[in-house]
Parts: sequence; structure tokens; C-alpha cells
Amino acid sequence: IKQSKLSADAAARGEYRHYMLKEIHEQPRAIADTLENRIGLERVYEQAFGHAATDLFADIEAVQIVACGTSYHAGLIGRYWLEGLASLPCTVEVASEFRYRKPRVAPHTLFVTLSQSGETADTLAALAYARELGFAHTLAICNAPESSLVRGSELVLMTQAGPEIGVASTKAFTTQLVALLLLVAVLGRRHALSPEGETHIVQLLRSLPGQIEQVLGLDAAVQAWVPFFANKQHALFLGRGTQYPVAMEGALKLKEISYIHAEAYPAGELKHGPLALVDSDMPVVAVAPNNELLEKLQSNLQEVRARGGELFVFADAQNAIREDAQTHVITVPPTDDLLAPIVYTVLLQLLAYHVAVSKGADIDQPRNLAKSVTVE
Amino acid sequence: IKQSKLSADAAARGEYRHYMLKEIHEQPRAIADTLENRIGLERVYEQAFGHAATDLFADIEAVQIVACGTSYHAGLIGRYWLEGLASLPCTVEVASEFRYRKPRVAPHTLFVTLSQSGETADTLAALAYARELGFAHTLAICNAPESSLVRGSELVLMTQAGPEIGVASTKAFTTQLVALLLLVAVLGRRHALSPEGETHIVQLLRSLPGQIEQVLGLDAAVQAWVPFFANKQHALFLGRGTQYPVAMEGALKLKEISYIHAEAYPAGELKHGPLALVDSDMPVVAVAPNNELLEKLQSNLQEVRARGGELFVFADAQNAIREDAQTHVITVPPTDDLLAPIVYTVLLQLLAYHVAVSKGADIDQPRNLAKSVTVE
Repeated sequence: IKQSKLSADAAARGEYRHYMLKEIHEQPRAIADTLENRIGLERVYEQAFGHAATDLFADIEAVQIVACGTSYHAGLIGRYWLEGLASLPCTVEVASEFRYRKPRVAPHTLFVTLSQSGETADTLAALAYARELGFAHTLAICNAPESSLVRGSELVLMTQAGPEIGVASTKAFTTQLVALLLLVAVLGRRHALSPEGETHIVQLLRSLPGQIEQVLGLDAAVQAWVPFFANKQHALFLGRGTQYPVAMEGALKLKEISYIHAEAYPAGELKHGPLALVDSDMPVVAVAPNNELLEKLQSNLQEVRARGGELFVFADAQNAIREDAQTHVITVPPTDDLLAPIVYTVLLQLLAYHVAVSKGADIDQPRNLAKSVTVE
Repeated sequence: IKQSKLSADAAARGEYRHYMLKEIHEQPRAIADTLENRIGLERVYEQAFGHAATDLFADIEAVQIVACGTSYHAGLIGRYWLEGLASLPCTVEVASEFRYRKPRVAPHTLFVTLSQSGETADTLAALAYARELGFAHTLAICNAPESSLVRGSELVLMTQAGPEIGVASTKAFTTQLVALLLLVAVLGRRHALSPEGETHIVQLLRSLPGQIEQVLGLDAAVQAWVPFFANKQHALFLGRGTQYPVAMEGALKLKEISYIHAEAYPAGELKHGPLALVDSDMPVVAVAPNNELLEKLQSNLQEVRARGGELFVFADAQNAIREDAQTHVITVPPTDDLLAPIVYTVLLQLLAYHVAVSKGADIDQPRNLAKSVTVE
């Protein structure tokens, strides 16, 4: 019986050694499925959010996002988009914190939850609390159709990632980001987003599965970095803007499955403390799709080098960043700023995966962690 | 000449081995000075914020706080207070992130900067950006009277911490928190804070220097924990609510001066990732003034123990938390929830200080860091 279970398991994993790797590679498909029937050539179909969506969205002037873990990172990126593209005020909070605060609820605020399983205990409790607090409407972005979160929300947008088995979330995260871009479009068109802006989002989304395929092709380059991390106990991940939550997500992935103590910082805060930690035992990973971050990083780079630290940069092909003995660069095909958080996340997933494999860790069931945190 | 400089230095440090320790012990005095002439028996004097304060505050309906490093942690605590006590919507952001975002600025929003030196480059740039964005008014909470930040702000509340020499900020942080409570009172009285609520804040503030003296008396108990940290490379700091930023501040202090990779998490997020890191090499520090956190921590505690992790809890005397081989408790005199972030911070400062001393680190001038970050 055990044997047959293992065979079934192997069949489900297909050609892949672990579910996590399979799920990383499924992302182009998962994203395409999440977009299917949700976008036309120029517009997002708002019926994807439910029949009542048109009426309910008309009432919305602000957004509160609540989530845990990886989903929280998606929410942080969503905030940048909602404020930057739609000019909608947005607040993001960890569910276990939100539910014990006394937030001032602005009228016409949409309460958005993000959860892969739809059974995350703190997120469900936060949703119940939100109802008490009197939020205008509720929306769940979720990957499990019959889940408590879906049943308890007025509006629902399902991510079509398919079952996610690996405890470290990958395709659920990137499809959440896609779902958030759809939300930006439908809310944004009622606010600061122009029709051209919406068309731009739709066109970029159409190109996304292909772009993910492209960066999956950088797998060998990422694997070549493994020896620099495998014997380390620490790592620092730096990003700026939407890439700061990407850095957080990259650090969390490495933490979860390789047990390396990885921590993320907004790049500008490096001098306000974490620089003290940097030495040859602390590799520094920077996600730098744009020149702005790189420019600001130059003096930090110099200090990192002076302390014997090594720098690992994922950089846009258009960025002229030089490799040297202490600076490693993986060049990423140019991508629009809007898609960069999704594209760069895939590279950090691969990095965490390969480092963990080299350490012989239990990739799909890391120690101490459960797939859905259904207790508080 | 060198000799005389050293003597002058020793004289300035007085009985203390390091400026940081001196500055930790100066906190009762620094807080008393920051309160002087700012509070009566029942009310906060709003003229402390400048002559125009009464007119300008009448116009305020929301607050945006921007800061870096330790001052950012003060801002995060301020947010809880402003929303919880005054029902004023408040957003807090790292300066280097804020200045590159496109935030939606709500009308009647007060832009508050926090900085010890008043010369922090990113904070100054954020203030300039805030003017472009059209915030209603600006307020600086600062420790350096002639600084650029003070000169560039409409309203100013000086912390009276006196010169802070140690790179790791201590008394500047706790006096910033006091200043934020004064702000909560003067803004809050125009919103959800009742006269009784304001009187309560004023009375608590009057008791604060004495309470800090009391916890400074726990120094020996904190020192007794040093052997559990001195040979560690990692530490995890947990808190909930206002104690989460306190945990962040405690982790930053340990990072800055002992070079231990300490990271803070909101306690409820433990199961969403960092629990994977916990083993006998990762001491877990919890700041738990209230029972709510402790109750939620019980299952986490059990998992921490099961992994061989050791727990170090700062807990209110009224909390019945049991010590065992893997659970160490320092009992803190009961304090009001409002003051708890300030009181518990002092204990984390002492912990960081003594651990760093035992490691022979350069306490007042940690490697790689500058006192004021005047470059970007």
C-alpha cells in the first residue's frame, strides 16, 4: 500500500524531483489559466469577480488587504500597484496583527483577503472582524473553491493555480499577483487608471506566461550560485519599491526550505543597521530590475565588498552592472516594471529550491511547517 | 593631545564603561526633560509644538509618519496609538521607500518626520517630496535643534534626550515615543480621545521616569541571560501589537552592536515561515506584557521546545508563565499597555548591550555603521 502511494506520488510529480520544482515550472500554465476568460484584448472582465462586482466596485474608494506569510507579500506588492496605478489608498496588514488592532475604517473600503487554501485561521478571523468593523464589501482572492474564505466573502476571484502540494508556496503567489493586477484594472478604471493604462496592463499580462518561460531558462545560471549559499547560515535580500516584497518573499522561501537565516531589507535601510552584519558569511542578494536601485546600491556595494561580503544581483539586461570577484550578476531579459515583481520572484524561487536541494533538505515538507496554517 | 581627548571622553562617560550604557541609564532623566513644560496635571500643552500648532492641528484628519531605522520603529508604535486612541488614520513608511512611491495623499494629512539627528538624508528628501505632494502640514520630532529637518518643518517638537553619542540609538528612541504620545493627546482631543483619556495619558507619562528606573533595576537578571546568547549567531524576537515594533527594535539593537543576526516577527507569523529556522542555535525572545500574546504563544512555545529551541520571555508580573529548562522568564513590574512599549524596550536595550560587551564588540562605534546616515 505504501508502495502504491509512492508511485501515485511519483506519477503526480511527473518528471520533477519535487512538487515544488514542478509547481515552479507550472507557473506559465497557472498564470495563463488565471487569465483565461478574465481578459479580452484590451479590458479585464469584471464579472470574473462575481455577478455583483459591477455594483459593488462602484462603491469602492479605498482598499484594505489582509493576509499571512507569502500571501502577505503579494498584498504588499498589490498596494504599490493600487496606489501607483489606480491612485486608490491601500493598507496591507498581517492577519494576526489586524485582528487585534482598532483600525479606523474609512467609508467605502473594500476588504481583500489573500489565501492559497482559504482556511488560514488568522485570515478567517480577520474576515469575521472586518464584518464587525463595517467594511463596505469583502473580496477573497483564493485558490481553493469550496474554502471557508470563499464561502464567507461577497466577491471572489479564484486563482487557477491548481493544487499546490509543496509547503513553500510558489504558483499560488504568482497567480495572486496576477489576480491583484486584474483588481487594479477593474478598480482603477473607476479612478486614476486610463483606458490606455488598462490596455497596457492587459497586454503585459498576455505576455507574462512567455516571460516566465524565458526566466525558467535561466535555471542553470541560478544553479551555478548554489555553492556560494549551501554552506552559509545567513543571507540578506535587498530590494526597493515593489522589489522589496519580492526580496521578502525570496528570503522567506530560502528560510522555509533551506533553513538558512535569510532576511530582507528595503535597500535604503541597509546603512541603518543590517550593514553591521555583513561579512564573508553573509551573502547579499539584490533584485534590481531598474537602474534607480542599482545607482543607490553603488555605495552599499562598495561597503559590502570592503567587509568581504559577496553580492548576488539579479539585474535587467539593460543595466550595466559589472561582475567582479565579489559581485555576481545574473542578467534577466528586460521586462516592464509592472511585471518585474512576478518575473524576479521566479528566479528567487529557483535559488531557494536549488540551495535547499544541495543541502539535502526535505523540500516539499520542511520541518516545523504545515501547508495551511489552520490554527492560530 | 590624544591623552587629553581620552580623558575628556572618560569624563563624559562618567561612571559608565560605554556611552550606550550611560545613555540607557539617562532615559528617566531624558524622558522627564522631554515632558517638562509640555504637560500640566491633566493636559498636554500644544504650544510645545510651536505657536501655529493650534491653528494647524485643527486642520488635521490623518497622519503620515516617515523615518529610518530606529526612528521608523517609533513611528510604527505611534501608528497603533494614533489609530487606537485618537481614531486617526495613520500610515508609516521607511523614508527611502516613501520618496520613490506615488502615494495617494488624503486631504488634511499631517506629515510627521522622526529623526534623532535631523540630518538623515532620506528623511530630508522625503520631507522635500512631501511638500511637492501637497501634504497639509509638516511636523518634525527631532533631537537636534538647529538641524535641517527642524528648519524645514512648519511644526517642531524637540525631544530633550541630550547629545546621543552611541551609534545604537537608545534615549532618542524612547523620547521619540514620549513625543508621539504628546502628539496623540493634542490631535486626539480633536477626534476620539476624551478629556479623561488625555488625563490618563498625562498621568501615565508622569509615572514613566519612575517606571524606567524600576526596570533598570532588572539589569542583573538581564545579564544572567548573556551566556545563552553570546555564542549564538541567530536570534528571533517575537511581539504582537505595539510590542512587534518593540521586538523589531530589540532585534536591531542586537544586530547593530553584537553582530548576531537577530530578526523580529509578529508572533502570529511564526508558523508562516520562521518556525522552520528554530533549533537549539536560535534563541527566541518574546516581549509579552499582556496575556493575549502569551495565550497565543503557547502552541508556538511547545513547538519551539520540541525543536530544542530556548525561549526568553519578558513577561508582566501578572502573567503566570512557568519557567522550565527551555523557558526563561524575566518578570517585569506591571505597567499600563500604553507605556509597555517604552518600558520593555529598555530591557531589550540592556540585553543587546550586555551580549555585545561579552563578545568584546565596539559598543559605541559598531563596524560599518555611522551615527547619522547623511548619505543615501
